[in-house]
Amino acid sequence: MKNISQVAEKLFNSQNISFIASVDEEGYPNIRAMLRPRKVEGAERILFSNNTSSGKVRHFLRDEKACVYVCDPASFQGLMLIGKMEVLETPEIKEMLWEEGDELYYPKGVTDPDYTVLRFTAWKGKYYSDLKSVAFEI
Amino acid sequence: MKNISQVAEKLFNSQNISFIASVDEEGYPNIRAMLRPRKVEGAERILFSNNTSSGKVRHFLRDEKACVYVCDPASFQGLMLIGKMEVLETPEIKEMLWEEGDELYYPKGVTDPDYTVLRFTAWKGKYYSDLKSVAFEI
Repeated sequence: MKNISQVAEKLFNSQNISFIASVDEEGYPNIRAMLRPRKVEGAERILFSNNTSSGKVRHFLRDEKACVYVCDPASFQGLMLIGKMEVLETPEIKEMLWEEGDELYYPKGVTDPDYTVLRFTAWKGKYYSDLKSVAFEI
Repeated sequence: MKNISQVAEKLFNSQNISFIASVDEEGYPNIRAMLRPRKVEGAERILFSNNTSSGKVRHFLRDEKACVYVCDPASFQGLMLIGKMEVLETPEIKEMLWEEGDELYYPKGVTDPDYTVLRFTAWKGKYYSDLKSVAFEI
């Protein structure tokens, strides 16, 4: 199997969207598309910016269990990561990840109370390619 | 809001892949990409072909709670559906959904024990467009 950290970084950085799933109050999985992560550190740690008011923030505060998925349909590759999602609210992390143009989503700027950071830490996953899948632990 | 059945049929039929999520034995959501559904009946019922041996079949036999997601990145539209996923094994439904070329995935043909049908029935969802979301019940 290829180096999974390299696979993860290449996949996340080559795709405009990825997907995250939470578990809601009734035990149902919920999928949402996300803009490209703000930071990808191998397959282990992925940081997203997000609206504080979104349903998934509420889900993760209640149950941190999460899945992050990214795929490249052109090359039939997919990567599913399983782990925990933390909701980070410190000014330091928010400033670190802020990018020009974010005012479109958070009109009040980096201190907008609706701007938050999601930090995902994976502990296992599955890599799909050529109609096969390989499970791995991190 | 647009007619949600029409939105669903148009989105699923215009995209090569959609995504489903199950909840695994440890309570983690799991996302997987799926080839285009075999049948889309509005937003309410969606049929997929699938490998019997896949992890998600095991998950759905244990916990039917499911999410199906489809999006069109070009038009910034997304549709999340919440409901139950049934694993169907009758020869009738398998024959009905069998398509030429399926031998690639199920070498033993329509009676291949590794070929199964997943039937999703939604009861609520969220439609995302123009940076807004609208929740609905079915």
